[in-house]
Amino acid sequence: MHASLPLHAACAPWLKQPVALGLSGGRDSVALLRALCMGGVRVFACHVHHGIRGEEADADAAFCAELCAGFGVPCAVYRADVPALAAAAGESLETAARRERRRLLAEHARRCGCGVVALAHHADDQAETVLFHLARGSAGLRGMLPVSEAEGLVWLRPLLDTRRAQITAWLQELGQAWREDASNALADVTRNALRLRVLPELEAALGREVAPVLCRSARLQGEVALALHAALEALPTRDPQGRLYLPFLEGKPQALRKAVVHDFLQRAGVGDLSERAVLGVCELLEPGARRSCCNLPGGLRACRRHKRLVVEPQRPLAGGEED
Amino acid sequence: MHASLPLHAACAPWLKQPVALGLSGGRDSVALLRALCMGGVRVFACHVHHGIRGEEADADAAFCAELCAGFGVPCAVYRADVPALAAAAGESLETAARRERRRLLAEHARRCGCGVVALAHHADDQAETVLFHLARGSAGLRGMLPVSEAEGLVWLRPLLDTRRAQITAWLQELGQAWREDASNALADVTRNALRLRVLPELEAALGREVAPVLCRSARLQGEVALALHAALEALPTRDPQGRLYLPFLEGKPQALRKAVVHDFLQRAGVGDLSERAVLGVCELLEPGARRSCCNLPGGLRACRRHKRLVVEPQRPLAGGEED
Repeated sequence: MHASLPLHAACAPWLKQPVALGLSGGRDSVALLRALCMGGVRVFACHVHHGIRGEEADADAAFCAELCAGFGVPCAVYRADVPALAAAAGESLETAARRERRRLLAEHARRCGCGVVALAHHADDQAETVLFHLARGSAGLRGMLPVSEAEGLVWLRPLLDTRRAQITAWLQELGQAWREDASNALADVTRNALRLRVLPELEAALGREVAPVLCRSARLQGEVALALHAALEALPTRDPQGRLYLPFLEGKPQALRKAVVHDFLQRAGVGDLSERAVLGVCELLEPGARRSCCNLPGGLRACRRHKRLVVEPQRPLAGGEED
Repeated sequence: MHASLPLHAACAPWLKQPVALGLSGGRDSVALLRALCMGGVRVFACHVHHGIRGEEADADAAFCAELCAGFGVPCAVYRADVPALAAAAGESLETAARRERRRLLAEHARRCGCGVVALAHHADDQAETVLFHLARGSAGLRGMLPVSEAEGLVWLRPLLDTRRAQITAWLQELGQAWREDASNALADVTRNALRLRVLPELEAALGREVAPVLCRSARLQGEVALALHAALEALPTRDPQGRLYLPFLEGKPQALRKAVVHDFLQRAGVGDLSERAVLGVCELLEPGARRSCCNLPGGLRACRRHKRLVVEPQRPLAGGEED
């Protein structure tokens, strides 16, 4: 009798429902399949054959089907023509594969009546993601969430706190095989470099494991962002008509003014907000500001008017002028 | 006629006063000396001879004295016995040297009547610092500040937005020499590994410069933390006696509850706050919590009492029992 892998506590309530599982046949998804089965979860496995890597990919699909059969888990195999999709979209194979895999998995979940989908990302994937976002210029530390909602489905990552080495050791202990190639078949070049070169150098420099630290920092950071959002929600920043009430901002520190303006613009439906755009709006609110309006992305503009800030179309429509 | 290096805008107002400058003779501090002189800043240079690296260190000190003389800048040379200090404190040479350098610089500033001190950290140092804190487990992205206050002095880092390569190119253009060894004489092993191995691997993986991105992320992150702090300040979380007013927390998201409790405990003087300690206090506030008190670091405890949370000594003192 083997102990199961620990699954993320935030996922537990969702695992009472039937779950659609993305199963590549690689180590991580095989481990998640086994752990879900041990936990008595009703699993509907979904394997995507990418239409590349010929016989290897055929063998991955056969492996998944056989593995699932052994545990009484239905396994659907979908065939994608990733090279054609990538060519059509002008994307890399990796990007096209990821998108198509996700699309087919969501479709599969709906077809099986599952409202919940499970993905096998683990703590080392999370550390890579955090570094990736950070070095790409995300404003903060941003990782994947153990539970998120998209496309009308709940997406779970029950292994998000589990280290890769722990997964490997557990499968070896179980005597459970996996398809080595399937794991890395379509990993992105950047991701591979982060995993194989940057993270090991970082661990060597610090003389300690960094993946748990990166994961924890990203989680705490996410909580700070949520706390700020909720705090702004609880402050009297808007008037009953939902316009930003400027006297609230008087005497407040610049960092809070920026956050309030950013939050207000976002709620007003301004997309693609740069720091520059937010600072432009903040300038309108300075005492003695020369301008009272400034343009925003998406054909919108912000205007200061009677101690309020409003967001409106750049050129207000005259009656019947345009539809 | 050469253009000066751009100095951080936040430092500008402070540079009207006389400034004490830490001058190692290495590239960065030499560049800062030249830039400050070009900007007409009154500089009092301070060179610390660490009592290691024998003739090399003597030559660094002589170089600094001569350089300063050429620009009419007074230059004081302090001699520290870093090996003895390190041995006495049980620290590494690098750590002891950094502390002693900083102590002597502060003392020098006071002696010269300077309220402002300038340090030559640049954008690449900042990127290292951000990675260093991140991988060591700081909760967020934390870097150095362009302007900060400590020990009754204002500490400036006017080159914090300037890249190392930009500094090198500028000095070469000026035909200004520097002491190569002085730059790295006592750099920490971890810092060197971050600079020489981790950051280059990260840049190679991403195919772009990451130092500016890390610096910007740390800055934005710092602003989010400041905004949250100011937002909590503006919320009615405390009663007139300064106790945490619990009805405020009802129905608020957990991330905000955690942030409010953390902020409250910090204001109440609880040091060394772990996430675990904050969560322990949050549990006291759950409906139906079994305990109403829990211990905190520093001999303090948090107690829920009449819809308030208070911080008090773990064992309230009876009159005359202890002093």
